[in-house]
Amino acid sequence: MSKYVIGIDYGTLSARAVLADTADGRVLSSCEYVYPHAVMNEKDICDSEPSVKTALAHPDDYIEALTSTVKGVLSESGVSPEEVVGLSIDATSSSVLPILNDGTPLASMQEFSRDPHAYIKLWKHHGGEEQADRMTRVASLRGEEWLESYGGTVSAEWALPKMLETLEKSPKVYNAAEKYSEIGDWLVSLITGTEYRSACQAGYKSMYQDGYPSKEYLNEVAPTFSTVLDKLRGEVVPPGTVAGYINENGEKLTGLRIGTAVSASAIDAHSALPAAKAVSDGDLTLIIGTSGCHILISKTDAPIKGICGKVMGGVVPDYRAYETGQSCVGDMFAWFMENCLPESYAERAREEGIGIFDYLNSLAEKLDIDSIGLLVLDWWNGNRSPYVDYDLSGLMIGMTLMTKPEEIYHAMLSSIAYGTRRMVELYEEGGVKVERIFAVGGIPLKNPLLMQIMADVLGKSISVVDSKQAGAKGSAIYAATAAGIYPDVEGAAEKMGDDCAAVYKQYPEAHAKFTRLYNMYVELSDGFANSDIMKRLRNK
Amino acid sequence: MSKYVIGIDYGTLSARAVLADTADGRVLSSCEYVYPHAVMNEKDICDSEPSVKTALAHPDDYIEALTSTVKGVLSESGVSPEEVVGLSIDATSSSVLPILNDGTPLASMQEFSRDPHAYIKLWKHHGGEEQADRMTRVASLRGEEWLESYGGTVSAEWALPKMLETLEKSPKVYNAAEKYSEIGDWLVSLITGTEYRSACQAGYKSMYQDGYPSKEYLNEVAPTFSTVLDKLRGEVVPPGTVAGYINENGEKLTGLRIGTAVSASAIDAHSALPAAKAVSDGDLTLIIGTSGCHILISKTDAPIKGICGKVMGGVVPDYRAYETGQSCVGDMFAWFMENCLPESYAERAREEGIGIFDYLNSLAEKLDIDSIGLLVLDWWNGNRSPYVDYDLSGLMIGMTLMTKPEEIYHAMLSSIAYGTRRMVELYEEGGVKVERIFAVGGIPLKNPLLMQIMADVLGKSISVVDSKQAGAKGSAIYAATAAGIYPDVEGAAEKMGDDCAAVYKQYPEAHAKFTRLYNMYVELSDGFANSDIMKRLRNK
Repeated sequence: MSKYVIGIDYGTLSARAVLADTADGRVLSSCEYVYPHAVMNEKDICDSEPSVKTALAHPDDYIEALTSTVKGVLSESGVSPEEVVGLSIDATSSSVLPILNDGTPLASMQEFSRDPHAYIKLWKHHGGEEQADRMTRVASLRGEEWLESYGGTVSAEWALPKMLETLEKSPKVYNAAEKYSEIGDWLVSLITGTEYRSACQAGYKSMYQDGYPSKEYLNEVAPTFSTVLDKLRGEVVPPGTVAGYINENGEKLTGLRIGTAVSASAIDAHSALPAAKAVSDGDLTLIIGTSGCHILISKTDAPIKGICGKVMGGVVPDYRAYETGQSCVGDMFAWFMENCLPESYAERAREEGIGIFDYLNSLAEKLDIDSIGLLVLDWWNGNRSPYVDYDLSGLMIGMTLMTKPEEIYHAMLSSIAYGTRRMVELYEEGGVKVERIFAVGGIPLKNPLLMQIMADVLGKSISVVDSKQAGAKGSAIYAATAAGIYPDVEGAAEKMGDDCAAVYKQYPEAHAKFTRLYNMYVELSDGFANSDIMKRLRNK
Repeated sequence: MSKYVIGIDYGTLSARAVLADTADGRVLSSCEYVYPHAVMNEKDICDSEPSVKTALAHPDDYIEALTSTVKGVLSESGVSPEEVVGLSIDATSSSVLPILNDGTPLASMQEFSRDPHAYIKLWKHHGGEEQADRMTRVASLRGEEWLESYGGTVSAEWALPKMLETLEKSPKVYNAAEKYSEIGDWLVSLITGTEYRSACQAGYKSMYQDGYPSKEYLNEVAPTFSTVLDKLRGEVVPPGTVAGYINENGEKLTGLRIGTAVSASAIDAHSALPAAKAVSDGDLTLIIGTSGCHILISKTDAPIKGICGKVMGGVVPDYRAYETGQSCVGDMFAWFMENCLPESYAERAREEGIGIFDYLNSLAEKLDIDSIGLLVLDWWNGNRSPYVDYDLSGLMIGMTLMTKPEEIYHAMLSSIAYGTRRMVELYEEGGVKVERIFAVGGIPLKNPLLMQIMADVLGKSISVVDSKQAGAKGSAIYAATAAGIYPDVEGAAEKMGDDCAAVYKQYPEAHAKFTRLYNMYVELSDGFANSDIMKRLRNK
């Protein structure tokens, strides 16, 4: 009898599941569920003025996605629950919610349904910026050892500042929360009854390094903040390891058999790596979607400026996984298309019967890199790496009366590649080698020009992985490992992972031209990151 | 019998004439002629690759405009040539062409018809940048006294660098040129037979201060460049003074009677001042069209950074007229509308049945100045004042994923006002007082939001002059003075000038908010003007 696994990938706007054969990774069926509430803010919850920094989600959507996608992949494939040996979940990281001990989200309780802090604070929720700054300051003054592994700065995107924001802005919600959980851990606990934490989520987003930050540190940040440690209780388990087994409630929600193995959850971005077989020393995977995330697998341990995390075994046992990121990629282009694309271009694309990105790419790919004369800092949503500063903002320089929309677009694409190169150079300067580069996510498959620019800017070939569902596929690989089909994640990835869809080679001539611009990008970046003018502009 | 005058205003794309009553300035008729060749470049003339810096015009268009508009205003008004006592012409400044002694333009000779240097080099032609830089450098090393009156820098827009460009790039044309002339002087000489130069054009654009720069200086700039002095011969005469009288050729071209007085020509921008009655000590007139020009009438003589000229009697006898400018205003918004305005906004404006500027204004005027968070450097066409640097380029800073097109538009409007305030402050720091502010030109009448922002940024009221044809009207006033109807320009302006269409008052609260942003504008301006990054971006 064949053995199958299910992987579910929880994104920002939808969840998708795949059902895969453990023998060769073949995907028999997939299913997507779009969250009805999408991304919420204060206006949606309590009808008050929304803040730019707010990004919330409704927990009901996530439970419904679990039921809907598992049933969907089973029914579409015709595979019976008996044939499913494992399940694994990955989800956006630093997306946390307050719950009761039995897993009930506070947002589902009438008492708290109009309090934004009771909802899931998504990864891109920045409401705890002041709290994050304070956590950095106190950690730095106290010389907290863990700080270095997180690039020297606590990001507002991470889990603890979000919890502290709740403690200080809505103590009622904070005190009512018997636990705080990442989405993935919450869902796994809900269907297994196990109290546990994903090493991947805790390691990257809750500063867990053989333990959370100390009571003393937390109380110095805010008088009673050490109470959060109790809300974070649970054994820390790496993805690919059994977190528990489907229980009665799990059977009810998913239709899977009681006793089916459930892996510890993973971060969505990290889950793409086994799918890409990017699990060797020096493998850098670029996960490019609404935002960008870079994960480097390495045997070397070194301090690197601007990393968001460095976790031993965070992706593959016995290797460190470094994480860095870019706060907006697809989001920036969506902004451009909505706010800057002139009517004549939209009309022309329609006349030619092609999408607007394809139309712009057809114009932009013909441009001479040396003649564009524009430079962009890709900070429309702040900067994650290397500055970890969300008060930074976008910049464009060099416009003339001859500047065309495709030149602006080309400069924006290039800025993404410069931001990535910056991190590769910081790794290499720190002695952590980058050997192979992989790209996964929606954008690498859809935008060949971005990939070519990326290869030319980096001066390295880039392999784009053939999986529209790398996250879910990676989860399926973790599920197969947790179910004992394979002895380790590397072995499972080798058999079940995906091959490259395309390899983008770098052209040395283009690399030289881009390098000239890249050096100016670094100069402007350092200049504006070290100046306070962007903050003053935003009244900071 | 009533006495009438005709004023003709030569702009970049068209010329317009008015026929006015000398008693009260009442305009009986007006007529516009759009140049068929518009602005030309290498492609139009010799089918070679056009340069961004090239802006040429065809002299035939200017002769045809003379004939067409004078006949037009006569026939429309029913006034007979006998009743016309004077004519005056104003034209864009630093718009020069090589001619023979009889006024024949080299561009009209078959031998030179395919040489771009034989055509009119328009004010915005920047092909002589390298030459201008050299002229500045040599003048500075030699300690040339005149340099200070021109803000310490020779602009590529001025007349002499354009002639030097021809000497060095097309010596055949340079040597064949028996004279070099500003458009206005050429046309006046053509219809009067007089060899003369406008004090206004020569004073501002050919560094004429009781004489042109010396032979020694010119030859140090380039070995044979002092030959240009012979090509610039002619008595220097201020506008409002008779340059000559219509001769046979003039009668043939215009239909006016032989012996009709013709005033020395004026620069188009300067011609607006008598029309605005802005001819007292401390009157600053903002002429806002495709580009911006500020002219300050003052009794004070002081060195001011970044002025493009300071000419005694340049506009009104016994007063100095300081000139500064902004290289693009209307041009920048035309660029924005063509290259950045999203389809949804264009559609919405059509649905509401209003123009796109009115639609954007309706959104932008509701914005809170403090919340926009964007800053723009208005350098899409380089910077004229105070940096006199055409290799500077546009900059926008502060974009986030929430930034809307109306915010970008508001920031661009504000940048124009900041650039103007910068010059007002430099005047005041230099001890030259600015009392009243006037605005003329197409944009002040069409864009009330820009005028309100301008008043709020400057912290001063602004009077918008009610004349859609201020240049032509000012020329009519000069014509009436030349014809002896009035003893001086001030008297003629008092009787014939136009009243204000609107006064924009400043709001102190808005002024305070804008001042916070303005200070950052100055900081960024000085930073980028003193850095070479914009030049490196353009491969300079």
